[in-house]
Amino acid sequence: MNDTLRREAETIVRRAIAAVTPERAVETALKGRSFPGRVYLAAVGKAAWKMAAAAARTLGDKLTEGAVVTKYGHTEGAIPRVACYEGGHPVPDEGGVAGTRAVLDLTRDLRMEDTVLFLLSGGGSALFEKPLIPLAELKDITDQMLSAGSDITEINTVRKRLSGVKGGRFAAWCAPARVITIVLSDVLGDPVDMIASGPAVPDLSTCGEALEVVRRYGIRISAQAESCLRTETPKDLPDTETLVVGSVRELCRAAAEECRALGYTPLLLTDRLCCEAKDAGSFLAGILKTHASDGRKTAFLAGGETVVHLSGTGLGGRNQEMALSAARGIAGVKNAAIVCVGSDGTDGPTDAAGGYADGDTLSALEAKGMSWDAMLENHDAYHALKAVGGLIKTGPTGTNVNDIAVALVGQ
Amino acid sequence: MNDTLRREAETIVRRAIAAVTPERAVETALKGRSFPGRVYLAAVGKAAWKMAAAAARTLGDKLTEGAVVTKYGHTEGAIPRVACYEGGHPVPDEGGVAGTRAVLDLTRDLRMEDTVLFLLSGGGSALFEKPLIPLAELKDITDQMLSAGSDITEINTVRKRLSGVKGGRFAAWCAPARVITIVLSDVLGDPVDMIASGPAVPDLSTCGEALEVVRRYGIRISAQAESCLRTETPKDLPDTETLVVGSVRELCRAAAEECRALGYTPLLLTDRLCCEAKDAGSFLAGILKTHASDGRKTAFLAGGETVVHLSGTGLGGRNQEMALSAARGIAGVKNAAIVCVGSDGTDGPTDAAGGYADGDTLSALEAKGMSWDAMLENHDAYHALKAVGGLIKTGPTGTNVNDIAVALVGQ
Repeated sequence: MNDTLRREAETIVRRAIAAVTPERAVETALKGRSFPGRVYLAAVGKAAWKMAAAAARTLGDKLTEGAVVTKYGHTEGAIPRVACYEGGHPVPDEGGVAGTRAVLDLTRDLRMEDTVLFLLSGGGSALFEKPLIPLAELKDITDQMLSAGSDITEINTVRKRLSGVKGGRFAAWCAPARVITIVLSDVLGDPVDMIASGPAVPDLSTCGEALEVVRRYGIRISAQAESCLRTETPKDLPDTETLVVGSVRELCRAAAEECRALGYTPLLLTDRLCCEAKDAGSFLAGILKTHASDGRKTAFLAGGETVVHLSGTGLGGRNQEMALSAARGIAGVKNAAIVCVGSDGTDGPTDAAGGYADGDTLSALEAKGMSWDAMLENHDAYHALKAVGGLIKTGPTGTNVNDIAVALVGQ
Repeated sequence: MNDTLRREAETIVRRAIAAVTPERAVETALKGRSFPGRVYLAAVGKAAWKMAAAAARTLGDKLTEGAVVTKYGHTEGAIPRVACYEGGHPVPDEGGVAGTRAVLDLTRDLRMEDTVLFLLSGGGSALFEKPLIPLAELKDITDQMLSAGSDITEINTVRKRLSGVKGGRFAAWCAPARVITIVLSDVLGDPVDMIASGPAVPDLSTCGEALEVVRRYGIRISAQAESCLRTETPKDLPDTETLVVGSVRELCRAAAEECRALGYTPLLLTDRLCCEAKDAGSFLAGILKTHASDGRKTAFLAGGETVVHLSGTGLGGRNQEMALSAARGIAGVKNAAIVCVGSDGTDGPTDAAGGYADGDTLSALEAKGMSWDAMLENHDAYHALKAVGGLIKTGPTGTNVNDIAVALVGQ
């Protein structure tokens, strides 16, 4: 193993993740801002508690009142002036509905000079819900659409209209107060109307489209639901602002900074990686091998979320598989390494955040009597990398902004 | 379709391919060279005739005598002072053996001031052969190794020793004359000892390794073959020179030049692309989408040879599949396009060299009632791209230096 590259690779990804924690993201977003009137806080999603705690700390006495709606088990204690609710995820339940009701109560009868800080993170779609039809029918309609093959845009077009808070309706409810949405995004490309179905973003879809989707896929709906689909969502929300402060893009940016600090010239390839993990690993290995003799330290960055089509009986995760896959292409290249990690600190059903491989990984595996082909074929990256010191373990990081891969050409 | 991008994409790949024809490659290699003594020409491989014709034209009266050994049907006429032979490929036969014998006769008893121009292209391994054991046993040993799971390096380690011309033995035969090898490579990374099993390159493998491979895989060999494996190959060939003049690297370099001429900043990602075609397309689409709003014209280049794991009943090739795959990721991006072609002008069992897709491709497919998912799933890129004007047709180009993909961010 190349100890220098191993150390630098781990430093880069650890520091990059530290830069996109919910706390850091919220602090960055609030820095230097002032608020003319009262400030209400509504935090929704899996990182809601952490985001709310950071905002409460930053705002101090400026915070009027707030509410958190997060997943069961994700509340870490009391926050001054902030009520905490927990609910079901990924399937919405009465807990989330009760939390949402509390947020709506809090933001009733606001004045123009007031501000609602709406802190949004992954899981918000299930947790922040005021169903306009019974939860059971909401679930049934979603299930019907999924099995009929509707895509996520089509599902959202329908679901926004069955909700009292989605598709911009939450921001409309808060009017005439200003709504500042601070987003920690786990959706590639950060489409703000998709994250939690856009509670504070004007809805671009129409009733006509929603009805057409239901017709096309033959979805059975009640008269009550049909009446909802005929009710238009807000198209104009003048006093709203959306800041995506934490996302895979910021993760890549932070990683690029760390690369620069270590003397590498960073080159962002993409922040929308979404192909098969092992092919992404092979592609990155090809890039490394091509540039290994350029004579300069370069870091190629790719953020996103790859996929693994599982087979076999092995243990691993998409990040470990990508790193292991790259090992073949860079075998013998002394100054090349790759590190791939999930920003939440977990990669597949393992205790590792991801994996590391360099020019020595393949021969190290062979020396242990392991076949690279067989381990990859069996999706057993965890045991392969474990044997050669290639696991990256961070523990849960408290953030979730997808994954990052850093491919290093060292000296 | 973005007509500007379509036109520029096609211009780039057509001109890049024109720069790596056998003729251009040989002319470039010979330019400015002078030869003190007699000049003998030995051209071997699928492009041997074209390379020899170009060399004969360039050398004129300087050419003493030459021989071509190429695949059946690849001789295009008479070349002054050059004898043409044809043989079997990929399975060697008596035709290739006879041609090889002619080359050896030609290069017998050379003097120190003489030069052998050895023109090598894909297919040379089968066509240039002086078997030291019967052809039938050579084939049997190869078959045994393949079914036992030996890799190409192991197979070559054994086969070099069963041949009178491989593993540096041809150059040793030509000594004390100087041997200049001009290579048109279809092997990624251009390992000169692998191309045609390195007839004019010192062999790095040893007899010990060859015997160990045979033992490990339990290969059954005759006493004659075993005696060959115990005979060492040349380790020192002082008066040899190898020039890789045509390869996917030169193809990428030529494409980069053409990109620059059209105002794009070219960025070579890799010249060793070898992953699944559809995932390479997805990766490149991610790169395009990430950089589409950078505000500058950039061209991302990837050379190599992807693979397709076939299923379904569709028609296509790896290059068409890569382009079609990218269409989803760049859908709606007005200034993004990708073109992928095979430098030999054929892509899979089709009459196209490759494919083109841009931000309009997906909607154009939908307008024709075609499902991107279904066409890709069925590996039917040919019919999908045909329907939307996305096929690139060049006809046979006479060269073969793998494939190139160019991903363009336009204005």
